[in-house]
Amino acid sequence: MMEEIKVEKVDKRKARPADGELSFGRTFTDHMFTMEYDENKGWHDPKVVPYQPLELDPAAACCHYGQTTFEGLKAYRSNNGALLFRPEKNAERFNNTNRRMCIPEMDPEFFVQAIKEAVRVDQDWIPAKEGTSLYIRPFILANEVYLGLKPSSHYKFVIIMSPVAAYYPQGIKPTRIYVETEYVRAVRGGTGSAKTGGNYAGSLKAQSSAADKGYDEVLWLDGVEREYVEEVGAMNVFFKIDGKIVTPELGGSVLPGITRDSVITMLEDWDYDVEVRKISIEDIAQAYKDGRLEEAFGTGTAAIISPIGELNYNGLKMEINDFETGEVASKLYKTLTGIQTGKVDDPYNWTEEIPLD
Amino acid sequence: MMEEIKVEKVDKRKARPADGELSFGRTFTDHMFTMEYDENKGWHDPKVVPYQPLELDPAAACCHYGQTTFEGLKAYRSNNGALLFRPEKNAERFNNTNRRMCIPEMDPEFFVQAIKEAVRVDQDWIPAKEGTSLYIRPFILANEVYLGLKPSSHYKFVIIMSPVAAYYPQGIKPTRIYVETEYVRAVRGGTGSAKTGGNYAGSLKAQSSAADKGYDEVLWLDGVEREYVEEVGAMNVFFKIDGKIVTPELGGSVLPGITRDSVITMLEDWDYDVEVRKISIEDIAQAYKDGRLEEAFGTGTAAIISPIGELNYNGLKMEINDFETGEVASKLYKTLTGIQTGKVDDPYNWTEEIPLD
Ligand SMILES: Cc1ncc(COP(=O)(O)O)c(C=O)c1O
Ligand SMILES: Cc1ncc(COP(=O)(O)O)c(C=O)c1O
Repeated sequence: MMEEIKVEKVDKRKARPADGELSFGRTFTDHMFTMEYDENKGWHDPKVVPYQPLELDPAAACCHYGQTTFEGLKAYRSNNGALLFRPEKNAERFNNTNRRMCIPEMDPEFFVQAIKEAVRVDQDWIPAKEGTSLYIRPFILANEVYLGLKPSSHYKFVIIMSPVAAYYPQGIKPTRIYVETEYVRAVRGGTGSAKTGGNYAGSLKAQSSAADKGYDEVLWLDGVEREYVEEVGAMNVFFKIDGKIVTPELGGSVLPGITRDSVITMLEDWDYDVEVRKISIEDIAQAYKDGRLEEAFGTGTAAIISPIGELNYNGLKMEINDFETGEVASKLYKTLTGIQTGKVDDPYNWTEEIPLD
Repeated sequence: MMEEIKVEKVDKRKARPADGELSFGRTFTDHMFTMEYDENKGWHDPKVVPYQPLELDPAAACCHYGQTTFEGLKAYRSNNGALLFRPEKNAERFNNTNRRMCIPEMDPEFFVQAIKEAVRVDQDWIPAKEGTSLYIRPFILANEVYLGLKPSSHYKFVIIMSPVAAYYPQGIKPTRIYVETEYVRAVRGGTGSAKTGGNYAGSLKAQSSAADKGYDEVLWLDGVEREYVEEVGAMNVFFKIDGKIVTPELGGSVLPGITRDSVITMLEDWDYDVEVRKISIEDIAQAYKDGRLEEAFGTGTAAIISPIGELNYNGLKMEINDFETGEVASKLYKTLTGIQTGKVDDPYNWTEEIPLD
């Protein structure tokens, strides 16, 4: 049933940056994957082609009405090949996102196959140095040429790949977080649980003003009560209070992170008490004042684990764990990155081998 | 201070559809306006060029993080030339939108000048038949080639133009509206008052399911209480209750429509009692039950005035004014379209002449 993926290779490969000179998301590999959708043919014409500009009619829907969705995952070099981390979860989330945004779903197995084929063609681009990886960005743009407001009848699916540096070149390091009380990222009934452009565009303003105040990211509160913790920047968030691990329930406005899901599984496996529930920022502040706030950290594909060293809530500066990476965060980071790179046993069967030549 | 707008004309003009064969937003004129932004030069290189595809790097910010904004207005053929309707209000709203979305503002006078120059070059495309117009779509795309989440350092500003049919070929006609109680368009602290893609992408799902139920548009309720009326589809909304006109206050989540502003001014001028305030959907339902709900209509650049003939709230089907266009809606439609086309006196100085050759 799946169409064969055609491969058209570049004549001349680009110069690859050395593993030590990588950054994030600025350098792209030699090729990209593309596939088209129209109402008659469905998803069709899958191919790997040289990395090249997209030609979009200026009236293409995505240029006006934001009907775009994306995913993000990484390929890691392992001892004897390359590994993906739970790519079927990205496929599942992508379909959930696309359903919310009125974009046609795709066969989840084909989504994973497309990624594998794209990585295979550009396998030399997977960096090897500790902490580095090949970041993979699948995305969809609505491209019907029409200014009417309705779901597009044409879409383009693209996968681009970028070799990225270690997120923590100097070792895992706590961040300073500003609790956002003016701007809202998402609200139940909205698009917060979907990976769609608008959520990220809407977050830029809060992120910029937090940066102006010297903070790395914002902690988002819910849009209704402005009280319950949702996410930190573009990561899910966890707290250790009184020895227990607490993380916000998804509730429709939180992005269901794959790292979050993996972290919950591991912590339960390690016999931590994990509570997935509403958490009010007032309760966090109270726990801090009582000396019961032991750790806080974000989780996401980019940083994997990002410890929070300070949380500023309306001027209350809560320093957490003496601005040191906590025990739970450390152990999660080590184990997760170990599994992802094949250095540590994978009891959950989370990694998937990419067949290389 | 303003850079001169270069003009590069097409070699061969396209065939223009006859005025009677127009639709909305599918046919575009021969030319488009473009201008670039970077941090060193600011907005620069303004030009009118042949209508052509945009070349976007697949890693351009707008393809991923939805940093896009737009405006919409119309040029009308008048007896002795062409008219714009309050374009300086579009310039002002565009800057407000861009500020919210971390996009650099532009000189409002230059914005209007750019529109005039683009329309002048394609002046033959302004249709003449009653009710037709040239729809003008200015928009900005973030196009820095970077997958990091931050405001882009490069932008492209484009104006495209499309000759459009009369919105009501058979005369102004009431619509059936479904009150949306599951999905939310916007919330205070979010981006609802900005004309940015994400708001529209997020609205597609509700719009589609209303259409499946046989309704034309949805009426949006606020995201916090799910009780207060906000907008109808992509229009502002007005009610006539007990002889008074009521319209929702803007409150941060409603798009500040230019038609809305004009309608409020005219109604006050005509000695109507106009209340700009929170309106609960329960109060609307009560007014309907008491026989006090006399009229309801949407306002926006596309339809100008769109009477509401039925409002379905949780199964309560409120038929308004016997599904006939009300007196207030009729008078507003006639007067506004009259002013816009120069057929009726313009006491507010709202129209602006476009110099034609
Ligand atoms: C808003 C948001 N929250 C959380 C996450 C974390 O998700 P994941 O662990 O799947 O990377 C992401 C994506 O990376 C995100 O964009
Ligand atoms: C969401 C939304 N509300 C209301 C309006 C009406 O605004 P205007 O009267 O300026 O066209 C628009 C735009 O047309 C809109 O997109």
